[in-house]
Amino acid sequence: MSYANLDSVTTLTFDIFGTVLDLAGSLIPPLKLLLAACDAPPAVTGEKVWAQWRLRQRIEQYQDNMLMLGHSGYLTVKRKALMYTLRSLKVNFTSENLDKFMKAYQLLTPFKDATDGLIRLSNKYRLVMLSNGEQHYLQHLATNRIGIDFDQILSAETVGQFKPHPSVYRFAAEKLDLEPQQIMMVAAHSFDILGARHSGFRGAYVNRYDLPYDESDYVPDITTENFYELCDTLEV
Amino acid sequence: MSYANLDSVTTLTFDIFGTVLDLAGSLIPPLKLLLAACDAPPAVTGEKVWAQWRLRQRIEQYQDNMLMLGHSGYLTVKRKALMYTLRSLKVNFTSENLDKFMKAYQLLTPFKDATDGLIRLSNKYRLVMLSNGEQHYLQHLATNRIGIDFDQILSAETVGQFKPHPSVYRFAAEKLDLEPQQIMMVAAHSFDILGARHSGFRGAYVNRYDLPYDESDYVPDITTENFYELCDTLEV
Repeated sequence: MSYANLDSVTTLTFDIFGTVLDLAGSLIPPLKLLLAACDAPPAVTGEKVWAQWRLRQRIEQYQDNMLMLGHSGYLTVKRKALMYTLRSLKVNFTSENLDKFMKAYQLLTPFKDATDGLIRLSNKYRLVMLSNGEQHYLQHLATNRIGIDFDQILSAETVGQFKPHPSVYRFAAEKLDLEPQQIMMVAAHSFDILGARHSGFRGAYVNRYDLPYDESDYVPDITTENFYELCDTLEV
Repeated sequence: MSYANLDSVTTLTFDIFGTVLDLAGSLIPPLKLLLAACDAPPAVTGEKVWAQWRLRQRIEQYQDNMLMLGHSGYLTVKRKALMYTLRSLKVNFTSENLDKFMKAYQLLTPFKDATDGLIRLSNKYRLVMLSNGEQHYLQHLATNRIGIDFDQILSAETVGQFKPHPSVYRFAAEKLDLEPQQIMMVAAHSFDILGARHSGFRGAYVNRYDLPYDESDYVPDITTENFYELCDTLEV
């Protein structure tokens, strides 16, 4: 697919958690404190919990979409996924342990290449946050943790579904008053590019975790390792 | 919740893959042959691939439900999930390698407690298979691999969604011409009990893998370690 096809793109929608914000770097240190407070056995490391928890989060989000019980919200699902993961590893915890840990979500730190890249990209594109996080929480992160002026902040909370449910991308196109091909989704998770491409968006897969793309014909238009490469490819 | 509440149950719907059929026991040996044929590094063991593949299968099934591109079918999704898993572990494979491996799905073996238990349960209940597998494939497994007479074999293929999508349980209740509370779902996967309970079914969680139940108020009516315990609890 040639670069020329991306000429119609005026707007970039960004995934935030894991793409702009460094979840592992921000959450593993407080996770270690949580495990210590819970007297977890030494074999249950912060890294191990993170790896299992990360996968469980997706399963919980997907089930939340599928079961038609109403939307739980990002932070609620993260907490439930952590509870499941700790139980599966036989770690005993209290509600207070979790309350204390969950405060770490207010202090997530962005990747340097992401903040540098967002500034460069803003010279050519309208920047929009399109995230599974709650609206008020995204606004806090944009202002206090990322420090970039986004043109709009769109939350999956508005449609009561998590990405990659099609309703999230369609809501974004409608809210932005754009045709899907004028929007390019930027994400470090292939499921997010998959969901966006299905709804007619263009897609840039920032493969910072060196993971394969989903087995699908809905492939990204651009694949890079980080935001610097993305900026170079988009000539900004 | 008291046992008396289960008096209305006339029919048991069974999950098959992982509940009646021993997936790990049946698939890890041929998986090892596949890895050897692909010259996988020794660190990439059959057990390791299985653990990752199993989680990826759920993600693929859930995405299949969510993305509204039409239903792929059980065996297609298993194959796609295996491809993703092998790529993530940097194992090179050919289409022929996979074709050969996938034949193992025709030879799945049931757990002994499941076949013994199904016979005991048939004295009191109508037995129905309710599975994510394709209709023709389920019929092969019932006849040639499980060897139990099921009253009906219901496939998620009919509604084009995988469990735990609500449409699967609703389709089953309609097809069986029963009120949901007359049906109890028996499954070794908590998501399947969760999905069934949401649709008004009763639920028996056969926790043979020693995994926590989902963080949810929709809990199973019965939790046992295997089918023998289930039979004892149901007094058959």
